[in-house]
Amino acid sequence: MKSNVAEILKSDTFLQEVTLKGWVRTFRSNRFIALNDGSTIKNIQCVIDFENTEEETLKRITTGAAIEVKGTLTESQGRGQSVEIQVSNIEILGDSNADEYPIQPKKHSFEFLRENAHLRVRTNTFSAVMRVRSKLSFAVHKYFQENGFNYVNTPIVTGSDAEGAGEMFRVTTFEDNKAPLTEDGNIDYTKDFFGKETNLTVSGQLEAETFAMALGKVYTFGPTFRAENSNTTRHLAEFWMIEPEVAFMDLDGNMDLSEDFIKSVLSYVLEHCKDDLEFLDQRLTQEEKSKPQAERSDMSLLEKLQFVVDNNFKRVSYTEAIDILRNSKPNKKKKFQFPINEWGADLQSEHERFLVEKHFKCPVILFDYPANIKAFYMRLNEDGKTVRAMDVLFPGIGEIVGGSQREERYDVLVDKIKAMGIDEKELWWYLDLRKFGTAVHSGFGLGFERLVQFATGMGNIRDVIPFPRTPQNAEF
Amino acid sequence: MKSNVAEILKSDTFLQEVTLKGWVRTFRSNRFIALNDGSTIKNIQCVIDFENTEEETLKRITTGAAIEVKGTLTESQGRGQSVEIQVSNIEILGDSNADEYPIQPKKHSFEFLRENAHLRVRTNTFSAVMRVRSKLSFAVHKYFQENGFNYVNTPIVTGSDAEGAGEMFRVTTFEDNKAPLTEDGNIDYTKDFFGKETNLTVSGQLEAETFAMALGKVYTFGPTFRAENSNTTRHLAEFWMIEPEVAFMDLDGNMDLSEDFIKSVLSYVLEHCKDDLEFLDQRLTQEEKSKPQAERSDMSLLEKLQFVVDNNFKRVSYTEAIDILRNSKPNKKKKFQFPINEWGADLQSEHERFLVEKHFKCPVILFDYPANIKAFYMRLNEDGKTVRAMDVLFPGIGEIVGGSQREERYDVLVDKIKAMGIDEKELWWYLDLRKFGTAVHSGFGLGFERLVQFATGMGNIRDVIPFPRTPQNAEF
Repeated sequence: MKSNVAEILKSDTFLQEVTLKGWVRTFRSNRFIALNDGSTIKNIQCVIDFENTEEETLKRITTGAAIEVKGTLTESQGRGQSVEIQVSNIEILGDSNADEYPIQPKKHSFEFLRENAHLRVRTNTFSAVMRVRSKLSFAVHKYFQENGFNYVNTPIVTGSDAEGAGEMFRVTTFEDNKAPLTEDGNIDYTKDFFGKETNLTVSGQLEAETFAMALGKVYTFGPTFRAENSNTTRHLAEFWMIEPEVAFMDLDGNMDLSEDFIKSVLSYVLEHCKDDLEFLDQRLTQEEKSKPQAERSDMSLLEKLQFVVDNNFKRVSYTEAIDILRNSKPNKKKKFQFPINEWGADLQSEHERFLVEKHFKCPVILFDYPANIKAFYMRLNEDGKTVRAMDVLFPGIGEIVGGSQREERYDVLVDKIKAMGIDEKELWWYLDLRKFGTAVHSGFGLGFERLVQFATGMGNIRDVIPFPRTPQNAEF
Repeated sequence: MKSNVAEILKSDTFLQEVTLKGWVRTFRSNRFIALNDGSTIKNIQCVIDFENTEEETLKRITTGAAIEVKGTLTESQGRGQSVEIQVSNIEILGDSNADEYPIQPKKHSFEFLRENAHLRVRTNTFSAVMRVRSKLSFAVHKYFQENGFNYVNTPIVTGSDAEGAGEMFRVTTFEDNKAPLTEDGNIDYTKDFFGKETNLTVSGQLEAETFAMALGKVYTFGPTFRAENSNTTRHLAEFWMIEPEVAFMDLDGNMDLSEDFIKSVLSYVLEHCKDDLEFLDQRLTQEEKSKPQAERSDMSLLEKLQFVVDNNFKRVSYTEAIDILRNSKPNKKKKFQFPINEWGADLQSEHERFLVEKHFKCPVILFDYPANIKAFYMRLNEDGKTVRAMDVLFPGIGEIVGGSQREERYDVLVDKIKAMGIDEKELWWYLDLRKFGTAVHSGFGLGFERLVQFATGMGNIRDVIPFPRTPQNAEF
């Protein structure tokens, strides 16, 4: 039995009786209901015999109302659809007062819709984004599972703060300003719920490494947190991160994995989210028309996705990148806010965008960064000054992946930890991995929302997660 | 190219050259290495030509050492395996000092292994459990995606504390005991990171409902938290929960969904985790031998899983269950710690276990509970005293699923919220769902770790999650 709009729209068996429940998107001429049930971005047209329908019922067919229709599936005479339902019976399940309902059939600003995040998924744009997000999540799991990876749920509450990926949120059951003190006047964390100071995780990498060194290939896919006061279109305080980690894999393998992974999951949504992506493609094209010509993209959304799937990512060492940037027009013309003068400079977003969008015009993997601008756990190269780090840079998004080959040598790692002033005792378990059966291993982190942004063409990261958490905002 | 132990063990192409990396599980007679790389619970036997191998190298082949072997795949003469590798070259990648390595090839207590959670996944038992956990996770996503559900990531940090499912952890960036105060001496939460008091979520249900009322069928699968001081084998402070939510579905549909879902995911692991489940089956049988006869299970692990897949869950109303319990032997003989005297009593674990393990001897779904022992959002029945709630009870586990049809009537819900003393303003967005296009809808929550416990036969919930969080414990 065909039970939802997606299935019925694909049907070519006419004159069958169908029953459908869904929500009214529009109702025009007292006759045509555009009905949506969330199974697809498309609505099905339901034709009412208004002369034989109670006036009272007709009035209650308003945008947002939940209804049940029974009727006959017929070939549509109208434009834009192949089938429609000739309604024999309609029941109003839940009214929607047209004067009060915030989501009217007109264009709403994204800002207004963020304030109504509980309802915005009832719009075409957000329902499409959220369906693509769901399919993309599944593609992530499917890719790793089919390639022999084990999913590992690393802890969200962590007593370890050694990773240093960013500012952390504290987790506590102490009453505010009533934390008990030790005899010498410090906070007595032994009395807190976990018996120690705890935070929300910034990354599952270190714990994932423990699993990689036993199961071989693992990945995480879970929420991570940054307590940074970043009010940008690219940052969230709570976001979902994907972190594969593989034993016996070096940096070259890591680059191969990241490229293959991204191409695979984007292929999956190109194949499984056709209708939603076509809608989002048109939405973006429409949006770009309001921009100055110079800021518009050369490619449509679908073209960009296909381009990434079909083309090799350009692999460039940090040292080569610095040469390119130093000799670039914007650098010579002092157009960069942060001019590139010498090797060792940390690359800013403007430099990454120049490399990806102007110079190479394709996704770029930068590798072998200076050791002193990267994390302690990255493997030191033989040159003694660079580490086996890599960043994947995407047009319009910037850094989408950050990864590295991990330092597998116990002594080198201990030296690095000491040099960076990290408490070695905090990392006893991480160091154990280098004491017992250590081996080359690598992994990366991919911010899932940035991938969803790229796949959907949405400009603001707050619009690709159901309920965004940002400074001063934890509504719903 | 066959690149891991799982693939090579399945091979029947002899005399091919193979290269394998992995960890030594055992080394006996200076000749036979049992090598494991995490891809399967099985080891591959690697036969060393010890007369032509350096004495120094032989000494370094210790339990836990990482090695690379090259050699020829041959039919095995030994028992217990069909193929083995005649090693032509061995390289030690990472040593493992036998005097220091905690994971020796002998039986360790689970308590000792919890203290070494970074290494315990190198044992047979924990590697099997974690592989089954991973496959079970995938089965969850696969089931929902193939049945038209959208995955929704509900927020982890929440400003809403209305659900009342349990004690919460606070999330803050205030320094301990240095939270700023308002003029009238209260904590000034507007100055905290999110501009309000925030906690870790206890359930994604209310937010998932907002998505179900737009996309139709959704599910969550993410971490949830309880700040309860429960030191039991069934409770964690941080655990993963699965919460489907479906528009236009009533309680009967909800029961059907929960039963079909559980059977489907258990079938999946029965099919895809044969080796691991056979090992865990034997482990459990072994463990039960040390128990008194009366406490042993009638069925082995594999039999239990097959039984659940093959048999209908028994559906029993709360009222029927009370009758059965009131007239039961243990109640009459006063063997229950909490005797059942009258309708309205909350069921304890002992009662649930009696119903499941002694009376019905199969999974049981209890439904239509008294309103006053259940949450505010459950739909009131026409009798005015029961609600459309359901719990799925499993042998050995107790409650594995809790769900309900949700109250879709605005007025009834508002009355309930007021009667329970919940701040109505906190739930404005939840009430909006009943104001605009409300409809019958239902869903349930399933504690993922309890499902993993059931699938693996592990007695303690701390042993089915990588790094358990419990009172006084957030190590790693």
